[in-house]
Amino acid sequence: MRSDDNTLVFDLEQPRTMGMPIHPAHRQAGYSYLLHRRHEDEYRPEESGPRTGAAGILVCGEHTGTHIDALCHQADALTLCGGVPVSEVQTSRGFTEHGVEKVPPIVAPGVLLDVAAFEGVEALEPGHVVTAADLAACCERQGVEVSPGSVALVRTGNGRFWDDEERYLAGSGMDAGASRWLADRGVVAVGADNMAWDVQGLRDPELGCLMPGHLILLARRGVYIVENLALEELASAGHHEFEFVCLPLKLVGATGSPVRPMARVASG
Amino acid sequence: MRSDDNTLVFDLEQPRTMGMPIHPAHRQAGYSYLLHRRHEDEYRPEESGPRTGAAGILVCGEHTGTHIDALCHQADALTLCGGVPVSEVQTSRGFTEHGVEKVPPIVAPGVLLDVAAFEGVEALEPGHVVTAADLAACCERQGVEVSPGSVALVRTGNGRFWDDEERYLAGSGMDAGASRWLADRGVVAVGADNMAWDVQGLRDPELGCLMPGHLILLARRGVYIVENLALEELASAGHHEFEFVCLPLKLVGATGSPVRPMARVASG
Amino acid sequence: MRSDDNTLVFDLEQPRTMGMPIHPAHRQAGYSYLLHRRHEDEYRPEESGPRTGAAGILVCGEHTGTHIDALCHQADALTLCGGVPVSEVQTSRGFTEHGVEKVPPIVAPGVLLDVAAFEGVEALEPGHVVTAADLAACCERQGVEVSPGSVALVRTGNGRFWDDEERYLAGSGMDAGASRWLADRGVVAVGADNMAWDVQGLRDPELGCLMPGHLILLARRGVYIVENLALEELASAGHHEFEFVCLPLKLVGATGSPVRPMARVASG
Amino acid sequence: MRSDDNTLVFDLEQPRTMGMPIHPAHRQAGYSYLLHRRHEDEYRPEESGPRTGAAGILVCGEHTGTHIDALCHQADALTLCGGVPVSEVQTSRGFTEHGVEKVPPIVAPGVLLDVAAFEGVEALEPGHVVTAADLAACCERQGVEVSPGSVALVRTGNGRFWDDEERYLAGSGMDAGASRWLADRGVVAVGADNMAWDVQGLRDPELGCLMPGHLILLARRGVYIVENLALEELASAGHHEFEFVCLPLKLVGATGSPVRPMARVASG
Repeated sequence: MRSDDNTLVFDLEQPRTMGMPIHPAHRQAGYSYLLHRRHEDEYRPEESGPRTGAAGILVCGEHTGTHIDALCHQADALTLCGGVPVSEVQTSRGFTEHGVEKVPPIVAPGVLLDVAAFEGVEALEPGHVVTAADLAACCERQGVEVSPGSVALVRTGNGRFWDDEERYLAGSGMDAGASRWLADRGVVAVGADNMAWDVQGLRDPELGCLMPGHLILLARRGVYIVENLALEELASAGHHEFEFVCLPLKLVGATGSPVRPMARVASG
Repeated sequence: MRSDDNTLVFDLEQPRTMGMPIHPAHRQAGYSYLLHRRHEDEYRPEESGPRTGAAGILVCGEHTGTHIDALCHQADALTLCGGVPVSEVQTSRGFTEHGVEKVPPIVAPGVLLDVAAFEGVEALEPGHVVTAADLAACCERQGVEVSPGSVALVRTGNGRFWDDEERYLAGSGMDAGASRWLADRGVVAVGADNMAWDVQGLRDPELGCLMPGHLILLARRGVYIVENLALEELASAGHHEFEFVCLPLKLVGATGSPVRPMARVASG
Repeated sequence: MRSDDNTLVFDLEQPRTMGMPIHPAHRQAGYSYLLHRRHEDEYRPEESGPRTGAAGILVCGEHTGTHIDALCHQADALTLCGGVPVSEVQTSRGFTEHGVEKVPPIVAPGVLLDVAAFEGVEALEPGHVVTAADLAACCERQGVEVSPGSVALVRTGNGRFWDDEERYLAGSGMDAGASRWLADRGVVAVGADNMAWDVQGLRDPELGCLMPGHLILLARRGVYIVENLALEELASAGHHEFEFVCLPLKLVGATGSPVRPMARVASG
Repeated sequence: MRSDDNTLVFDLEQPRTMGMPIHPAHRQAGYSYLLHRRHEDEYRPEESGPRTGAAGILVCGEHTGTHIDALCHQADALTLCGGVPVSEVQTSRGFTEHGVEKVPPIVAPGVLLDVAAFEGVEALEPGHVVTAADLAACCERQGVEVSPGSVALVRTGNGRFWDDEERYLAGSGMDAGASRWLADRGVVAVGADNMAWDVQGLRDPELGCLMPGHLILLARRGVYIVENLALEELASAGHHEFEFVCLPLKLVGATGSPVRPMARVASG
């Protein structure tokens, strides 16, 4: 959509509905929005005029839908990024360090690495592993660079399966090397159109863990991860460089926040 | 804070904590964030490497903390903005029209009407009523205008009481005329540093209802309301004009969304 | 188990876990129990001694797990049992009439109608319809009667599939005639080892609705329904007559309550 | 109320409503019941007959309202009753040992120790400490004994303040000696008409902790505690001996369960 200053704004959030894909580890909290207060409940025009209100309740894990991971979401040998021992900052109400309220408003140069387009497919196959070499080649082909202070978004094409949980969760992702390559370029945050950035179920042989990108980016390098991005419209429009804006909610102590990021480009 | 392109970014969201002020009508849903999955739960370094994750659950009304009201939040004689009968679009999962997912990313010129400064006080007294004349005089004194397509934020000074629920809820607000005056100027959205824009408990004699601004703005004029803004820092810095960015979550069907708006100004 | 007065007590509640079968209509509220406060959080033996506490949060629909339906759960042409118009008693916080808090502690003669045993199967096939004639024949075969003021429990054998949601939900149930037959005998409540008493997906040709037993029993005859009972142990022990005790929580306004009913029989 | 076999049944549960007294430690989970599915939502008589359903969502801590504490609720130097180390059985979904699902249906002789009546007051004063000597004297005066396998309920008179949270929470309770005296008599469970059995804010000098009864009964002696009982009606009727029935929900892993206990006495 066109904003008032003639920039174009692309909405990178997937819609939040009951039934959207949820990572198995977060299904216990899930996602529900239920309306309880309805307009007719308080409609007594003779006593209180024509105005009425309605309201609901939201119950969700903070890692459902399009969201950003706070640094406290991941630990490396029970230590958070920067050497903070988990035992000193973890409480029943969340973390007293590296909670998502510590993430500043993110306003940064953004670059879209369209790996699906690079591979010539609509979406990478389930289990497809994106490597550092893939990202480097994709940058070269697109004629873009990943610069310090920027945000790198990787398109796998998986976002088109948002309405199909089984297919969505079976998506592709980045290996440890791809995460390292981006961190080495000084990014503030990374993001992708899949559930968990990393390839589901792929153990890194060196680190010995699943989801190595989470360890490298959040716990070791202080780089935020944005997941479940909607990148199809931005990619279709052919924009590989933009201003990326992401405003995480200050849910004090939480390990992440639902977000509605946007990409903004100067319009023709 | 300074963003990468040398603009200054002001964070307009109040922190979200258990114990923050909540409007009595929304206490039934309330606000809780509870951590359940902790890092040590899955720490088995020999089997699965050094990486662990933590996560929580969020339970809240969508009108808690800094938030935006969707148009479906209010009705006028059981009709939503634009003549949509409530009975046709209201479901247990929210509204099929005018839900908050229909609110676009808001990127618009913003103006701060600092009524507290205009009155020469740190914060308006509880019950103080801000009128159209006050807003007009404040604009003149500040040398600003409220233009079509812009967002007008009114500072009452109440935001400094965020840690004191009783005092916060006793704050001041706008009368029907002030809301009309802003709608007449073509604003996209309004916002204030109080719980509910309108003066709590003040019935409008003509409309016969409490919270007349909610009726006028949301149900009649299609103007969004942002509540519980944190405006102290922006006001202290003396910025009355800025770019206002607000990215409501697409909680499909919901009557509002928590948000973290920002004000952005060109830096010296 | 043997109680202190040498009666035998049979526990008729299925265990409540995340992952237990939930009726599709109630998945939006779902069932979660998450521990947030942990013992180590407050363990400071030198300051506050050796004692610590732990606690969690429960989020669920009232129709999950073994539960009783309150009369307000069902309506007949928007009228509750006894002619109460829904519009007069339905609020955002539940019902002001016929809420589950109005259900008394149920202490009544109970009879188990073991239809699965009667049919000579471990469990009735998915879609199997239990009729009034089946119930009558089962009573005769068992040598029992359904008396006024009693509670009739029907065993379909479906309870053995509690760990298999797909099979559990595909279970069998009662037709309209079976519900009428029991209501005609003056029962206070009925119950079964399936999700919803009635046969899922079976429309009653005369009433024109799905789940006719819900209409007949709750909305027309004032008979409570208990669902998802665990009847295997009681049936294996061969007890067809017992004292039935069910103590619904007084969740004011709610349309049902989770319960742990018991059957009590004189021992040896 | 009179049950079918001419016993009298007394309902010992306080009604559950938003606004009922909640212990400060459990306010983060709180208590909400909200109706979302309403009868009119699915009322399409020509297509689907006259039947409709309504349903809600329950969000609560398991220690709200009348409830029973499971043994895992309390620990003694990070060890649960019977020497189970907390670290081995505590998970994000609750406890794998001593969770409330392990509490059997409680059907036991009950005795009411009416300390308020013994002291000749309607309710003990806030902060009043009930000792072992008080309980012994009360038994003697009432002509009752606390026997092995029984359940002892102590009436402080505090239950009459259920509608007044401030006064209710300021109630009286038992000291360490009273808890020990009951445990020494072999009770299965104890209960009272206050928020937390123990005297709020009273540190035991020997054990060095607040709420010594919780430590002694749950963590050391394996005795369940039932809190927030409604004892006024039972006391008014003058019944000091009865059958006590309490059927905790099998919320797998949870540290307690809401319950509706009953006292049953042979009627005249």
